[in-house]
Amino acid sequence: MTAEKINEIITPEELLKHWQGHRNLTRRVIEAFPEKELFTHRIGGMRSFADMLMELLGIAGPGIMEIVNGVPTQLNEHFEHGNQKSAILAKWDETTEVLDAYMPQIGRDRYHDKIKAFGQYEGTVLSTILYYIDNEIHHRAQGYVYLRSLGVEPPAFWDRP
Amino acid sequence: MTAEKINEIITPEELLKHWQGHRNLTRRVIEAFPEKELFTHRIGGMRSFADMLMELLGIAGPGIMEIVNGVPTQLNEHFEHGNQKSAILAKWDETTEVLDAYMPQIGRDRYHDKIKAFGQYEGTVLSTILYYIDNEIHHRAQGYVYLRSLGVEPPAFWDRP
Repeated sequence: MTAEKINEIITPEELLKHWQGHRNLTRRVIEAFPEKELFTHRIGGMRSFADMLMELLGIAGPGIMEIVNGVPTQLNEHFEHGNQKSAILAKWDETTEVLDAYMPQIGRDRYHDKIKAFGQYEGTVLSTILYYIDNEIHHRAQGYVYLRSLGVEPPAFWDRP
Repeated sequence: MTAEKINEIITPEELLKHWQGHRNLTRRVIEAFPEKELFTHRIGGMRSFADMLMELLGIAGPGIMEIVNGVPTQLNEHFEHGNQKSAILAKWDETTEVLDAYMPQIGRDRYHDKIKAFGQYEGTVLSTILYYIDNEIHHRAQGYVYLRSLGVEPPAFWDRP
């Protein structure tokens, strides 16, 4: 164990790994959806899981690039997917690469800096990234309920390689 | 900003505050449930929200006390609530005090220690605490779907004082 690790409870590398572990699980939740219901199934007036995923995809890559580049970015929760699960998965994998490339560019000394996410949501770099992760857990869990209501067994929550 | 904060991306105090912010939101989700449906409403063969809360309450206080005391603890996801929302809320508030009292006793140098949560789940102190928080976000989000399916507007996800 390095001295650095003893002095901090989580390193930037661990935070990225933690998020990518969650993203790997979310990817498997997407895969578990029947293709049609991914875009159409809803409960209680909520959005389809595909619509929630467009929010997550609109936030993650652009949100981290915004933190790195410091250029206020417009939140865009839509992209052309043609009701194809493969299009969502391709965008998911592209975002995985964006996070791997950009997260390491955020210096340790920046995590307590005050920022405005997407040009408007006030917080620190840390609170913003935690929000992005928590928001993914939140919507993925709603996907779990959608899957259960469709009679599909979701992947185990604790299984995050 | 202290030198300490510049060298670590999140402090133990911030991690506790982050969790308590989530727990405050979960408390408001509990309050939003109609009392009967808190114990009876289910979707897709899942548990009632009260049953999920018993899991969260079985984990949080005892799990953090186990980390502090180092004494393997049996996971207990049940307590007598008599189908009363007030009993769940009282246990929730009791757990808030347990976390405030015990979390600060976990030294910075312990977060990367390997432990077995509830005597069996392998991880580090950090990964275990993150799991406890993430698991709460996960089940609370399922409570959101339950509320929506009951026609009840849940509290805003981003509102975590």
